[in-house]
Amino acid sequence: MSGNMTAVVKVRPGENGTELQSVSIPRPGANDVLIEVNVASICGTDVHIYNWDAWAANRIKPPLIYGHEFAGNVVEIGKNVDFVKVGDYVSGECHIACGHCFNCRTGMMHVCQSTKIFGVDRAGAFAKYISIPQNNVWHNDPELSPEICSIQDPLGNAIHTIFSTDVAGKDVAIMGVGPIGAMAVAVCKHIGASQIFAIGRRNQYRIDMAKDLGADYALSSLRDDVKGRLMDATDGKGVDVVLEMSGNPDAVLMGLDVMRTGGTISLLGVYSKPLTVNLSTQVVFKYATIKGINGRLMFDTWYRMKGLLKNKALLNDLNKIITHKFKLEEFQKAMETMRSGDSGKVVMYVD
Amino acid sequence: MSGNMTAVVKVRPGENGTELQSVSIPRPGANDVLIEVNVASICGTDVHIYNWDAWAANRIKPPLIYGHEFAGNVVEIGKNVDFVKVGDYVSGECHIACGHCFNCRTGMMHVCQSTKIFGVDRAGAFAKYISIPQNNVWHNDPELSPEICSIQDPLGNAIHTIFSTDVAGKDVAIMGVGPIGAMAVAVCKHIGASQIFAIGRRNQYRIDMAKDLGADYALSSLRDDVKGRLMDATDGKGVDVVLEMSGNPDAVLMGLDVMRTGGTISLLGVYSKPLTVNLSTQVVFKYATIKGINGRLMFDTWYRMKGLLKNKALLNDLNKIITHKFKLEEFQKAMETMRSGDSGKVVMYVD
Amino acid sequence: MSGNMTAVVKVRPGENGTELQSVSIPRPGANDVLIEVNVASICGTDVHIYNWDAWAANRIKPPLIYGHEFAGNVVEIGKNVDFVKVGDYVSGECHIACGHCFNCRTGMMHVCQSTKIFGVDRAGAFAKYISIPQNNVWHNDPELSPEICSIQDPLGNAIHTIFSTDVAGKDVAIMGVGPIGAMAVAVCKHIGASQIFAIGRRNQYRIDMAKDLGADYALSSLRDDVKGRLMDATDGKGVDVVLEMSGNPDAVLMGLDVMRTGGTISLLGVYSKPLTVNLSTQVVFKYATIKGINGRLMFDTWYRMKGLLKNKALLNDLNKIITHKFKLEEFQKAMETMRSGDSGKVVMYVD
Amino acid sequence: MSGNMTAVVKVRPGENGTELQSVSIPRPGANDVLIEVNVASICGTDVHIYNWDAWAANRIKPPLIYGHEFAGNVVEIGKNVDFVKVGDYVSGECHIACGHCFNCRTGMMHVCQSTKIFGVDRAGAFAKYISIPQNNVWHNDPELSPEICSIQDPLGNAIHTIFSTDVAGKDVAIMGVGPIGAMAVAVCKHIGASQIFAIGRRNQYRIDMAKDLGADYALSSLRDDVKGRLMDATDGKGVDVVLEMSGNPDAVLMGLDVMRTGGTISLLGVYSKPLTVNLSTQVVFKYATIKGINGRLMFDTWYRMKGLLKNKALLNDLNKIITHKFKLEEFQKAMETMRSGDSGKVVMYVD
Repeated sequence: MSGNMTAVVKVRPGENGTELQSVSIPRPGANDVLIEVNVASICGTDVHIYNWDAWAANRIKPPLIYGHEFAGNVVEIGKNVDFVKVGDYVSGECHIACGHCFNCRTGMMHVCQSTKIFGVDRAGAFAKYISIPQNNVWHNDPELSPEICSIQDPLGNAIHTIFSTDVAGKDVAIMGVGPIGAMAVAVCKHIGASQIFAIGRRNQYRIDMAKDLGADYALSSLRDDVKGRLMDATDGKGVDVVLEMSGNPDAVLMGLDVMRTGGTISLLGVYSKPLTVNLSTQVVFKYATIKGINGRLMFDTWYRMKGLLKNKALLNDLNKIITHKFKLEEFQKAMETMRSGDSGKVVMYVD
Repeated sequence: MSGNMTAVVKVRPGENGTELQSVSIPRPGANDVLIEVNVASICGTDVHIYNWDAWAANRIKPPLIYGHEFAGNVVEIGKNVDFVKVGDYVSGECHIACGHCFNCRTGMMHVCQSTKIFGVDRAGAFAKYISIPQNNVWHNDPELSPEICSIQDPLGNAIHTIFSTDVAGKDVAIMGVGPIGAMAVAVCKHIGASQIFAIGRRNQYRIDMAKDLGADYALSSLRDDVKGRLMDATDGKGVDVVLEMSGNPDAVLMGLDVMRTGGTISLLGVYSKPLTVNLSTQVVFKYATIKGINGRLMFDTWYRMKGLLKNKALLNDLNKIITHKFKLEEFQKAMETMRSGDSGKVVMYVD
Repeated sequence: MSGNMTAVVKVRPGENGTELQSVSIPRPGANDVLIEVNVASICGTDVHIYNWDAWAANRIKPPLIYGHEFAGNVVEIGKNVDFVKVGDYVSGECHIACGHCFNCRTGMMHVCQSTKIFGVDRAGAFAKYISIPQNNVWHNDPELSPEICSIQDPLGNAIHTIFSTDVAGKDVAIMGVGPIGAMAVAVCKHIGASQIFAIGRRNQYRIDMAKDLGADYALSSLRDDVKGRLMDATDGKGVDVVLEMSGNPDAVLMGLDVMRTGGTISLLGVYSKPLTVNLSTQVVFKYATIKGINGRLMFDTWYRMKGLLKNKALLNDLNKIITHKFKLEEFQKAMETMRSGDSGKVVMYVD
Repeated sequence: MSGNMTAVVKVRPGENGTELQSVSIPRPGANDVLIEVNVASICGTDVHIYNWDAWAANRIKPPLIYGHEFAGNVVEIGKNVDFVKVGDYVSGECHIACGHCFNCRTGMMHVCQSTKIFGVDRAGAFAKYISIPQNNVWHNDPELSPEICSIQDPLGNAIHTIFSTDVAGKDVAIMGVGPIGAMAVAVCKHIGASQIFAIGRRNQYRIDMAKDLGADYALSSLRDDVKGRLMDATDGKGVDVVLEMSGNPDAVLMGLDVMRTGGTISLLGVYSKPLTVNLSTQVVFKYATIKGINGRLMFDTWYRMKGLLKNKALLNDLNKIITHKFKLEEFQKAMETMRSGDSGKVVMYVD
């Protein structure tokens, strides 16, 4: 495949540095596959790049095609590629791992010591075509829509976090009701969580979405007596599990506070401020476990996700979380929708 | 409480040795509670006692009030009882553990080295009243019906077996579609199992029930090509998990045969015949795990069950499994219904 | 058994509130056993009570016989006692659990919601006799000396902490080289830890003891470049496991800093100051696990300890940690020795 | 590197089909490394090939250089090799995995669905040079001798089996006292097993070796009352863990028989005969776990092994297991020594 294609490119630093450009179609290397993107969805990371905040200014080297959540079809394969075929319906795991370091060799490829992320460190998915290593290809279930397949990256984050704990038959507090928090509500609902408490802050749109997805309680930490409500609902025992998806250290503290003795809190958030915590009362005497989570297990999480997505009722709920759909050319409207906060996942169609 | 009560008593050995009698109400000891039984349900074990098979002849010492699955209300407490009150809505864990042996002190009270089972080794629940140690009392969720609460013993067996493995997002084969197999189908459905394969043998009534409860495939090992169907549905990989609830060694072999590399098979059945197995091909090279299961974790399983039973859709399915309801006085019809095989759980009302 | 006995009693608040008194021998209740104490050892908690610090002033109600680490022989049993006999050689688990709360019923008796500790909340072991519930009795291996048996409480703390992680073949940093840290060094050495890094602060006596017990590196966080040394010795990867036994939040931060991706830090310390931590870099992106630990698993930890103590080389090392021996009458010298910091465990003989 | 080299080659089927030949030095592909072999050791598998038994006749396609246990130095690397350098001191994991199948992508590369084994399915290590993929290279600790490094494959089998259970502080029965059983004794001794019971059959040489390595009891199932001895030594409770390394179904039955309630038996053996077992009494009511094990976790087991091998006392014991040393040219004497049964590991030097 050669010629040009349309892509969303961060062409220069700054908030107005993103442009729709015609660029060369990437040429896949010997171990790579070229994929025609059908649907791409927008991650919070993409908004950071669009906004050009401190993290983006430090990490991103323009020009860069960004975007790392997508579904599409393989159109070309490198000469060493042996388990992907032209025509395959695929998505991609965005962490490109070295395969050789201690982490890669002990089941932690997702935190490879020299990981590169497509859409961050090399050309991404907001384009007609993307080239990725065959090791990063995920074969989608043909029964799933491309919209659902495009959001498997964040859904995988949620599932990785949930399955770092033990949720079935347990009371679960989900701190943060952005798209990943909303997905966590949906998944917990369909894997037998007992009571689900979804805790947002300001954004009522998203608190309402969590409620609509089946949270037994959808509360605002600003407007509701969260601790009082959770303690009442758990007969004073506290929740068994906290899934922290807000990135706010105050939510971590609240999570530790409402968690029962021997409970587990898993942290998926990125925290801009430090946490100050009383270890004795909140961790040691509570016999608590705290886990840091990121990425998705490569590829245990993806297999489990494929299995969970056989559930039609879960699919129906996940579709509710995809609240807005645009064309790739409308990427600015798409980004602004994400920035507004009044959305779930925003997907873009490429053609 | 004193006086007499009606009870179903095995008065003498033999198939016609069960009678409805008027017997003394039991007197609770210092650590016991007396419970007025509201609903009792019939276990396969009760049918063994009724039938007076080899196991029963060896274990049971008539006269004995049998039955160990029930729900009711506390009417009297012993003088040392401190965490149960008169009026409490309760069921009972039937394994009376010593509390002091290695098993009891390391999280395995359910296999206490000197366990006694009420309804087997001492007076049981097919009666107006039953006395049990307060350590065996389980406080029911007031929102649950007594019918559902009465079947928590076998439901707990199913849950203990399921949670000895990892089912969410996984393909699961359930061998055996009796009441516990049916409960396993229902629970697996509501905790996110991917594809559920329920495998019966002769009894089409129960295969149909499994299908109705949501099994993706409900098959007969006599009439269907079970291995072919499972391998097709799993793209030749085999199922991740096998829950063996039939008690038939052939089903164990089939389970090992359809299980993927690295899978787990948990055995709840009681096997009258030995198993002959090729360990190299079926266990070692498959990197398989085999677990023997019995009873319920005291009381981890009960807490998880309470959490799972918050799910209305699961409750609805479990209610479908309670196919027949009788009065205690009709115990013979109830037993015959169980013996016919054309039933799910059979419950009896006591008044 | 009746009459009087000698005991170390906190008779009134204040630093000079401890006296040797003649008091009544306790009368065991129906579920209790009376034990003639042979050896008692001094815990940091006892020093808090002796010193009458803020914690002690808040928790202790004089008059109180304190001390909770001991070994001795049963001399009398209550009428319901059925698994302990007069003459048994025993020690005691100091947490008296209710047996009925959620924690007690799910394998967490050591953090029972209404726990009482003997030697803290009721009469303890610095006396000729102590009465404890039979549920708290531990039968000692007759081949073990009473000195070793008397220190099983803190040794159990160390073992509980170590086995909350995975140490065999792994690099382990032990923060804090007091008696429990020293025990952790000894145990890790004999269960196959790869490299052991023992990190003290000011006290060179205890750093030297850690070295003598087999720590590959025994360092002072004040005088040595701890991070540099650990990173060098682990080829820049960091340690697999951190056992935090110092109670100093700075040691927690250092522990997180020298720990590899995917590592586990277990916290046994009691922290007088809060911890301020960057969750993103120190926990989330490191895929780290933090566990709060206290007490001993009742009684999994005790059984494992009994098994570990079959090892003569480990016993030999543990005996080195018992650096001072006094008579109960010399309790003031014993306490002052502990206060000096220039000691390992201090034991007292009762006769 | 080009030219010829000396190699032990199965040149044709049959017991006398092995010859020392001069063959071409292999040419490493783009992802391969060429290693100059220093020491190679003999596995039971090699004896099967030498003997040309049914398994060998079915699997091996002559001509084949066999041998898969070795240590050496890298002399040449393929053009895509990026984490191995010329001069590196290495050994090799013999399972060449596809990297893409379900097993490979979920932490089970050692049971890859299309695995090839060097020395079995392609040219092996009984030669001056061997070429293997860089993914199969293991960097040896420079402080370890080549003899020790050459036996890491079977040592890794033992370690994988041991760590599929929980041995520290536990009573362990090791069924089978061949080289891997002997290694298991040595490792269990140095990771804190409580009592170690090594059970052989006929071969007194190997039973004595197990005793010399520190087994608390080294018994013959033919000459000793194994069950009686084990039950006595465990106060009638039975062992916590059984490591089955004999390949004899009778040893599996004995293992289940002497194992405590809730114990684990891990099977590393290859079983020529089927096992007939009473599942109810031996598995279900015992709450037992049975695990099939093979290979080594790639590469969790290797990392743990590297950590364990920091222990000088363990190294000393492992060196005792290397009982015979030959030159490669003496391969027939080496093979005959292994066949005699009166040996531990037999290593061959290549020059």
